[in-house]
Amino acid sequence: MATENQDRVTAAVLIIGDEILSGRTQDTNLRDIARYLGVHGVDLAEARTVSDVPEEIIAALNALRERYDYVITTGGIGPTHDDITADAVAAAFGVELYEHPEIIAQIEARVASRPGAVMNAAMRRMARVPVGGELVRSSVAAPPGFTIGNVFTLAGVPTIMRAMLEDVGHRLKGGVVTVSRTVRVEGSGESVIAAPLEAVAKAHPGMSLGSYPFFDNGLYGSNLVLRGRDEEELAATVEELIAVLKAEGVENVREVVAANS
Amino acid sequence: MATENQDRVTAAVLIIGDEILSGRTQDTNLRDIARYLGVHGVDLAEARTVSDVPEEIIAALNALRERYDYVITTGGIGPTHDDITADAVAAAFGVELYEHPEIIAQIEARVASRPGAVMNAAMRRMARVPVGGELVRSSVAAPPGFTIGNVFTLAGVPTIMRAMLEDVGHRLKGGVVTVSRTVRVEGSGESVIAAPLEAVAKAHPGMSLGSYPFFDNGLYGSNLVLRGRDEEELAATVEELIAVLKAEGVENVREVVAANS
Repeated sequence: MATENQDRVTAAVLIIGDEILSGRTQDTNLRDIARYLGVHGVDLAEARTVSDVPEEIIAALNALRERYDYVITTGGIGPTHDDITADAVAAAFGVELYEHPEIIAQIEARVASRPGAVMNAAMRRMARVPVGGELVRSSVAAPPGFTIGNVFTLAGVPTIMRAMLEDVGHRLKGGVVTVSRTVRVEGSGESVIAAPLEAVAKAHPGMSLGSYPFFDNGLYGSNLVLRGRDEEELAATVEELIAVLKAEGVENVREVVAANS
Repeated sequence: MATENQDRVTAAVLIIGDEILSGRTQDTNLRDIARYLGVHGVDLAEARTVSDVPEEIIAALNALRERYDYVITTGGIGPTHDDITADAVAAAFGVELYEHPEIIAQIEARVASRPGAVMNAAMRRMARVPVGGELVRSSVAAPPGFTIGNVFTLAGVPTIMRAMLEDVGHRLKGGVVTVSRTVRVEGSGESVIAAPLEAVAKAHPGMSLGSYPFFDNGLYGSNLVLRGRDEEELAATVEELIAVLKAEGVENVREVVAANS
């Protein structure tokens, strides 16, 4: 675990899923986790997607947990043979898996409520947690995820993942929250705004300034996103950027409520 | 460059973009590239998302291009100061950047068509290509991407990225195309289908069988995706899986045209 500076707390996301790499499924967990971490003052610094192969998962997990303060994995904790994330996390930490009694009890209760259902090996598979791990519970009817060391292992199904995430935030030691503001330029291309944008970026090394162009039914322009940890400096930078752009002849420029693009 | 076996051709995607890691933007390029590569017989084996930091891009690029047959990067080739992908690719290959005359000519023509527009340093930035690289052209009005070695550097804006991708496929030495078929089970949970699914998977080690559960307004079940390179064995495996599931008492099971989940 290492951070670049004292203020910055970092995380990585490890997406485990052949279905993402085959293009079959569109991942949305990365964005949801990124936003959730941001609110908690944790910067998502890297993300990796690997296939359902034990060695791949273990290698990526060890690389990421060494480098960042936290790692969040998604996917591969269901009952089928291709659900191998618990095995990989246990192997990465060099510990065994055991059947957690709380999860067994939860599954038993669910089985008991369904006429004719019986507990089987596949269900027991979902109760396996690495020795030394703690549960990550959720409000939905799914077996919990778990956390061990600086790793949080969550479900891949987005609704379940988001529910589990609610049990992660209170365990994070967040840094200063990064705030962002967006200045929107319409009718001017990036090549016109590049020089003034760079000048403002250089004058404020503590701020991050990015330009995200859009092309939408003949309307074009760019959303300039300013990010930083000092709200006062951020406000001053927004004002300065708008003034500098207007001085360059960029007329249609204004601050907007951040929207996705 | 290495492949696990002769039949398999692999690729990795490197997404360069603070806007993805901040959660501001939902990436869709990964899925589009995965599907495109699949059609060309190339398996997407890994994906990474890194921030707009030169050292991060260079390190990831070198790790991926060493390990996989191809690497496709997206993002960071525009005209603004945070567009540093060309610099990073050139640094990874140990070569210089130069202004490509074809791109300069393209930009000049565009500038000439706009009254009052003048060529500036930001525009010239988009003409920079690593020495030894070739252009990746597209049908849209945007400067080309480029390829050097086994790396393809494309735009991040999805419409431009997809247009550039059309100039990538004919340069790939694809392997045998992976085909997939989907068996849908409704009204039975994964814990019921896990054992028969695993038995069929073990009997067909050349096939990949994944289970992707769904929960949709009270309807639940799982899409079982079978993937492989031998269409005849794939067809036989689909039949076998359906028969084994029915023998286990799973009634609502049928093959479906693959849909996203």
